[in-house]
Amino acid sequence: MAIEKAMTNGVGFVSVRNSNHYGIAGYYSLMALKHDLIGISLTNSDAYVVPTFGREVMLGTNPISVTIPTGKERPFVLDMSTAVATLGKVEVYSRMGKRLPPGWATDEKGQSCDDPARVLSNIRSRAGGGILPLGGEGEEFGGHKGYGLDLLVDILSGVLSGSGNTNLLYPKTPEGKPLPSLVGHFFGALRVDFFRPVEEFKRDMDDLIRRLKKSAKAEGQERIFIYGEKEFELEEKYRKEGIPLYFKVYEDLKAIAGEVGVLFDL
Amino acid sequence: MAIEKAMTNGVGFVSVRNSNHYGIAGYYSLMALKHDLIGISLTNSDAYVVPTFGREVMLGTNPISVTIPTGKERPFVLDMSTAVATLGKVEVYSRMGKRLPPGWATDEKGQSCDDPARVLSNIRSRAGGGILPLGGEGEEFGGHKGYGLDLLVDILSGVLSGSGNTNLLYPKTPEGKPLPSLVGHFFGALRVDFFRPVEEFKRDMDDLIRRLKKSAKAEGQERIFIYGEKEFELEEKYRKEGIPLYFKVYEDLKAIAGEVGVLFDL
Repeated sequence: MAIEKAMTNGVGFVSVRNSNHYGIAGYYSLMALKHDLIGISLTNSDAYVVPTFGREVMLGTNPISVTIPTGKERPFVLDMSTAVATLGKVEVYSRMGKRLPPGWATDEKGQSCDDPARVLSNIRSRAGGGILPLGGEGEEFGGHKGYGLDLLVDILSGVLSGSGNTNLLYPKTPEGKPLPSLVGHFFGALRVDFFRPVEEFKRDMDDLIRRLKKSAKAEGQERIFIYGEKEFELEEKYRKEGIPLYFKVYEDLKAIAGEVGVLFDL
Repeated sequence: MAIEKAMTNGVGFVSVRNSNHYGIAGYYSLMALKHDLIGISLTNSDAYVVPTFGREVMLGTNPISVTIPTGKERPFVLDMSTAVATLGKVEVYSRMGKRLPPGWATDEKGQSCDDPARVLSNIRSRAGGGILPLGGEGEEFGGHKGYGLDLLVDILSGVLSGSGNTNLLYPKTPEGKPLPSLVGHFFGALRVDFFRPVEEFKRDMDDLIRRLKKSAKAEGQERIFIYGEKEFELEEKYRKEGIPLYFKVYEDLKAIAGEVGVLFDL
């Protein structure tokens, strides 16, 4: 709908309420690309993040995705959570038995915590502590900026749509029975050619990307990336070599196939 | 112009090219507030920031400002550079003889550097190294996210407007004579009432702000802030007590007054 509006009027914005987890933020912003539009996709999500100076999880890892058309170079696909790390990453550290890097998470008292299992358990039981916003703990490294962006995404997704916000996305009855979820999304599309000819824009995007990638590297580094590049390369690899299926996922798929009575033949 | 467009059509976006430093990003986004609009203001700026894994300053501290109307609570005014710190902050550390926090800046080799005077001198002479994006060095703390946001602001401000981008905002002749600057801006305004009744939106914003501020604090912390709050309080204080004028600024004003022949009576 945002794309349709943009095609007609130059720009289109749509909000969604009473929704649930919408998958990958970039999936939606990428839809704008084949129309030569700039695509925007935001959502709020279940509360895993503590505000700067806070101890309670009040915000989701609320992602921002913006897709920008290019000419010959791969498109710029920003797709980032506004937290320093996602819950999935903390789970990976937990499974690997690794300590969390400083500035990723806090404990029940709201103090820095490098124990991923404890952080996960605290988030699930709402015992206090959680993942920190992008920029980490306090204000010294810009944690208030990540917190500001996180809240902005919540406002545009949850408040503007009239859906839920902060830690109120998954309400329950007094008896603890889950009620319909209140996740909100915000989608936007902008016509490049309302600002300048698309071909000129794409030429300048290609030039910008090439100059950035060619610019001098830090000692010990070989490559400067553009957002989206790593994922495009992984997609190419997986299309050639197949998608590796982890055993846990294989087992889950098999169980679900059994439940719904579908032949599982892998 | 963005406000006018939004009042008529629900949303308005305007880009500006061949401009120069535009002052405070929030000044423009705040203009939307009295019309009950969401206001957006972005700009690119002179290159002080290195891309993730890079050694050359290729990006500005490119700020993002978004202003959101509220009811009885103070408005949400996001106004943040996409770098971990501004050049001004590095200058303050230099004047105070303090070391920079880790993850703020890099040296000529692109390695972490806590010497503010060296960082400033390297940025000015383009010797290599500069301020890091929000999230700091590498990808472990989300530095690639700050770099992605920084580049996004450059694209929307510089490429969409057809102005300059990256480190090409202040061109010179081959003889080193400055040519007109190529800074670009991006302004936007959105009508809240195209999504839902403004009074409901404002009520929910007030409620969101109150719940956030009332939520549990980290041990040792007394207050959770909303973006813009500190600045509003400072404004109130200054309106009552006057604005402290630092000696260096006083001397500068005096010198400029002499140059332009204006009476300086402070």
